[in-house]
Amino acid sequence: MNHSGRTIGVLGGGQLARMLALAGAPLGLRFLVVDSAEDACAAQVAPMLRADWRDFDALADFARRIDVATFDFENVPADTAHWLTEHTKVFPNPRALATSQDRLAEKSLFREIGLDTPAFAAVDSRDDLARAVETIGTPSILKTRRLGYDGKGQFRLKSVADVDAAWEALGGAPSILEAFVPFERELSVVAVRARDGEFRTWPLTQNWHADGILSASLAPAPHAETLAPIAFAHARRIAEALDYVGTFALELFVRDGRLLGNEMAPRVHNSGHWTIEGSPASQFENHVRAVLGMPLGDTSALGINAMLNWVGELPPADPVLAEPRAHWHDYGKSPRAGRKVGHATFCADDAAEMRDRLRRIGAALGREAQVAPVIAALG
Amino acid sequence: MNHSGRTIGVLGGGQLARMLALAGAPLGLRFLVVDSAEDACAAQVAPMLRADWRDFDALADFARRIDVATFDFENVPADTAHWLTEHTKVFPNPRALATSQDRLAEKSLFREIGLDTPAFAAVDSRDDLARAVETIGTPSILKTRRLGYDGKGQFRLKSVADVDAAWEALGGAPSILEAFVPFERELSVVAVRARDGEFRTWPLTQNWHADGILSASLAPAPHAETLAPIAFAHARRIAEALDYVGTFALELFVRDGRLLGNEMAPRVHNSGHWTIEGSPASQFENHVRAVLGMPLGDTSALGINAMLNWVGELPPADPVLAEPRAHWHDYGKSPRAGRKVGHATFCADDAAEMRDRLRRIGAALGREAQVAPVIAALG
Repeated sequence: MNHSGRTIGVLGGGQLARMLALAGAPLGLRFLVVDSAEDACAAQVAPMLRADWRDFDALADFARRIDVATFDFENVPADTAHWLTEHTKVFPNPRALATSQDRLAEKSLFREIGLDTPAFAAVDSRDDLARAVETIGTPSILKTRRLGYDGKGQFRLKSVADVDAAWEALGGAPSILEAFVPFERELSVVAVRARDGEFRTWPLTQNWHADGILSASLAPAPHAETLAPIAFAHARRIAEALDYVGTFALELFVRDGRLLGNEMAPRVHNSGHWTIEGSPASQFENHVRAVLGMPLGDTSALGINAMLNWVGELPPADPVLAEPRAHWHDYGKSPRAGRKVGHATFCADDAAEMRDRLRRIGAALGREAQVAPVIAALG
Repeated sequence: MNHSGRTIGVLGGGQLARMLALAGAPLGLRFLVVDSAEDACAAQVAPMLRADWRDFDALADFARRIDVATFDFENVPADTAHWLTEHTKVFPNPRALATSQDRLAEKSLFREIGLDTPAFAAVDSRDDLARAVETIGTPSILKTRRLGYDGKGQFRLKSVADVDAAWEALGGAPSILEAFVPFERELSVVAVRARDGEFRTWPLTQNWHADGILSASLAPAPHAETLAPIAFAHARRIAEALDYVGTFALELFVRDGRLLGNEMAPRVHNSGHWTIEGSPASQFENHVRAVLGMPLGDTSALGINAMLNWVGELPPADPVLAEPRAHWHDYGKSPRAGRKVGHATFCADDAAEMRDRLRRIGAALGREAQVAPVIAALG
């Protein structure tokens, strides 16, 4: 079957949609992005329909012009996703989207499939919160059930005295209280499931955050030979439970050598950006393959890969451009505090070569603090 | 210096412009293509201005909207290229374009810089041709000085009796007669030169043609350790003689173990398509870097790489999509006899792995004849 000329519609026109379109173009695929922002950066590489998520006239036009719809953003309203399924094919399915939009449903699924999580409790009132703090203790984190990402919609409680402040900070939204886990490492599984149920994972990735936003990733995650197959089995069970189609990420903590489920992202994920150069088939290419029913591509890792995120503004490009086996990604977005505006990926044959590369780059960009944990993890 | 948001204008909107735009997008660059064909395939990934090469009003608009102009096609009229230099930056420069547009000037340059060529003679009349056939002998090939590519504008003479037929076939256009060289191998240097004169080459590539059109490439070319530095030195001298900026290809024959210059292409080249996956910086990425004055990227080869061209129509995609370390490229063009509509690149760590990969693909696609010479060259 030849998929030449088929069109993938993407709800959301950010850097993920942009990288989906760039990965799909060599396969002869076309894209149509829908976003309400005039300056959505995916519009630089694909046609865009400017519309609100709830503009069903525009969505009807969108659905007519595409062969399949997908998302670069998990917080698409559930009714929009459901409406779309009546007008075109939609992958991942709205149930998968709904589950991962709701921290309570998500964490409950993790436990159902046998993946432990930090202790948590549903919080729908100030009294719920007070009771939950007694059970779970402090430090703990109050998180809105919906619409949280990159550390937004969260409040950390240091003691019982913080209950009122926490409840006010989140505006009384339905939430969950989670035990704060002093984890040793953060890992993520980036995986893809095809329409026919075929399931593949890229090698396990280790991640570091700064101010709640991903700062760096390293793949394959070092010293994870025992944990990797367990993590992959959890990801597979989650995907099967949701009848998930496409690429997704499962974020995990490691505490006392054991895995705890943090959250899943029902889309291509920042911790999988290294796969663009570090794997024969990137997370973006395999996502478009999956949603169109094409065979999945090779998810092996080519050597060692490190990704540094550029948040707020881009550092100078030239030191990265001049470095061997380094790859610059500028999303074409204007700078803004806390905004992901680009990343760079560094590839190497072994840990020593990678350490040297990251040391040079850290020094040249004045980003020693960003590269330090990655260098340390390389042993 | 940050090049974010700068726009490269490309004259010609075919697959080379398309792959330039796809390579430049991750660098935060924008593209504007100008082409007279409504269905130019680069327009699927970049904005296009539909105009004729000689529509100077449209070109003025084009020049205003870009930071630098380049080409996906060497046969842009010389006056168009010259006109552009008065309105924007143009790389490569029009002199380099003019030299490679004219087989006589090109072959003369090769000899000047010390690169042997097959015997040749200028032919401006039927009498010139008769005299040239006496000197050069047969078999020989009459080629128009201008506008020839992919075997077009050529006539092969088997004996003196073919003089009239050859002269008529080429319509009396200014031509050159070249001795037919029964070469052992065809090689190409794909190289890039920066605005500051920095010069880099990708590893030497071995090529196979069918019906005058590139059919397959293999890089690094096997058993070329002695020839490679000589070939690179020739390419460098040519680039310096022309003050060339950007990616170009130098096609070479090997006869009795010695290199002969065939032709140069003043642009990214089909024999360099393997660099998209086979090198940290592809010929496309380094071309856009060069024309904008950015540092050049790493041109090393990652393992062994083979490219198969899809001419006329695409074979079924699925066997390639399902093969490890295989990459499918569909240019989004409609099928037509003799038209390049796509290619696939195969990567491997060693010759044995590549032979297995190509045998499987050859069998699955019924393309045994296309892969056979590549497998043979892998030893």
